[in-house]
Amino acid sequence: MKLEDLGEDRLLARILPRLQNGNLVVAGAGDDCAIVRPPSVGNLLVLKTDCVVASVHFQPKANPVDVGWKAMMRPLSDFAATSAIPRFALVTLIVSKKTSSNWVEQVYRGLHRAAAQFDVSIVGGEMSGTRGPAAISVSVVGEVEKDRWMSRRGGRAGDDLFVTGCLGGASKGKHLRLVPRIAESRWLTKNFSIHAMIDLSDGLGADLPRLAAASNLGFQIDKNRLPRARGVTIDHAISDGEDYELLFAISPRTRDRLQKSWRQKFPRLPLTGIGSLHQQSAINASPARTNQQLKGGYVHFQ
Amino acid sequence: MKLEDLGEDRLLARILPRLQNGNLVVAGAGDDCAIVRPPSVGNLLVLKTDCVVASVHFQPKANPVDVGWKAMMRPLSDFAATSAIPRFALVTLIVSKKTSSNWVEQVYRGLHRAAAQFDVSIVGGEMSGTRGPAAISVSVVGEVEKDRWMSRRGGRAGDDLFVTGCLGGASKGKHLRLVPRIAESRWLTKNFSIHAMIDLSDGLGADLPRLAAASNLGFQIDKNRLPRARGVTIDHAISDGEDYELLFAISPRTRDRLQKSWRQKFPRLPLTGIGSLHQQSAINASPARTNQQLKGGYVHFQ
Repeated sequence: MKLEDLGEDRLLARILPRLQNGNLVVAGAGDDCAIVRPPSVGNLLVLKTDCVVASVHFQPKANPVDVGWKAMMRPLSDFAATSAIPRFALVTLIVSKKTSSNWVEQVYRGLHRAAAQFDVSIVGGEMSGTRGPAAISVSVVGEVEKDRWMSRRGGRAGDDLFVTGCLGGASKGKHLRLVPRIAESRWLTKNFSIHAMIDLSDGLGADLPRLAAASNLGFQIDKNRLPRARGVTIDHAISDGEDYELLFAISPRTRDRLQKSWRQKFPRLPLTGIGSLHQQSAINASPARTNQQLKGGYVHFQ
Repeated sequence: MKLEDLGEDRLLARILPRLQNGNLVVAGAGDDCAIVRPPSVGNLLVLKTDCVVASVHFQPKANPVDVGWKAMMRPLSDFAATSAIPRFALVTLIVSKKTSSNWVEQVYRGLHRAAAQFDVSIVGGEMSGTRGPAAISVSVVGEVEKDRWMSRRGGRAGDDLFVTGCLGGASKGKHLRLVPRIAESRWLTKNFSIHAMIDLSDGLGADLPRLAAASNLGFQIDKNRLPRARGVTIDHAISDGEDYELLFAISPRTRDRLQKSWRQKFPRLPLTGIGSLHQQSAINASPARTNQQLKGGYVHFQ
């Protein structure tokens, strides 16, 4: 049945009862605002919004459960970058009234599944018609300890740069199945002094310069050391984007302890040192080539 | 200049410095997540998201400052309904890369102006391209005292129903200049025991039945008593929508004190008793006609 035949109230009546609210939710979806418990005493609030748009972030024919999954996981990946705990999500769905209500219900199934994986309660949302492609915007609210939140800004000259996982090849479907590195990030900030962190959503080629610039530093990486997904060239590993892996800066004095404990804790996820932060920017593809700009990475509107 | 020529990073560099962050913001727009201070001790968190879409909520040729204003004020109107204090906003802008960067900057000017009017800090956002109409999604986070938040659910049989302002005629431009009734709502819950409240975003014909249903009650209103905007028929006052006025239920014992203090506090804004909540639903257009369903009101997708 199409949305225009079903109507908003009846669609909501199908979706709302499936949302499971945790004990932090005082009044969830279905009222004008959601009312929820504040963060634990001493913690700060963490806020993030992100969106997926048809033909930009997913193909119109993609499995709608995957689309919902990705829509929820994208802002959660920013929580990983911040080393914060997500708690509540708000969902805005903008779709044509010609869309089948089944497609919308499947998207919600994906949203719900992704939220449940990280104990996030979907506490509200909004629907609107459009004449254009479908768009799903998800805002997430959570919390973090005052002395534990990460940003792009704290990198220091001489810091090692590490990335989790493998880079590149996301467009082959990996981007729809992303799992934010929240557990890894929380473990890192619990056990190590991380100076700066970012999640690789636009690709190393775009996000590494952002971390460096926010820290008022340049960087030096060895392209040959980049951990690449199977069959992916170096250039694609740098520029494909949508890796949703962590990139972080840490004192080189911690290198050995970090690598050893990481292998014990996350034996199936690579952690790779790819270079370091410096006063000046350079890429060493070979020792003879320096001061080459790192290009590529997905930049919106270009 | 078009967005595709300017690029996301340069556009953000133009917009971000203009955002004024209050002293509750620890780390605002420009990092992966925003970090902000939690609610005052004892208060609950309040969350709401809403959106505007071109050709649905605004005409493509509308003044972009007005579009931004409306995009921010819509979720703030839900804060009025909840009698909550808004604090932080996240903005997602989905536009074609052919859009002029000036249009986007004007939209942000409107968003910013609206946020400033209610001391709300815009602490983050997201931009994405689309092949379709522009859409702006705004999520707002705030707080409310544990014993003061309002919902649609608390109405009691016999309660008076009041609306603020005048209904109908929003499409003539009023909808772009809405001012959420937050001050009025906070005053009401400070001085009176309000049982249930909702903001009239889809029109009395859609929102009154929602308040009644959430309270497990019916309603009786006198159509002839509806406060109408100039030149608006009764049917339009019921069904136009986008009034963003408050509808609330309160014990009839408070009627005289409410009306007298309201006139003193808000002399320029009408407050009108339009009927009451009952076990059974009915509209009295004239005393002879009862049990007529209240129809109309804007329902999405229909």
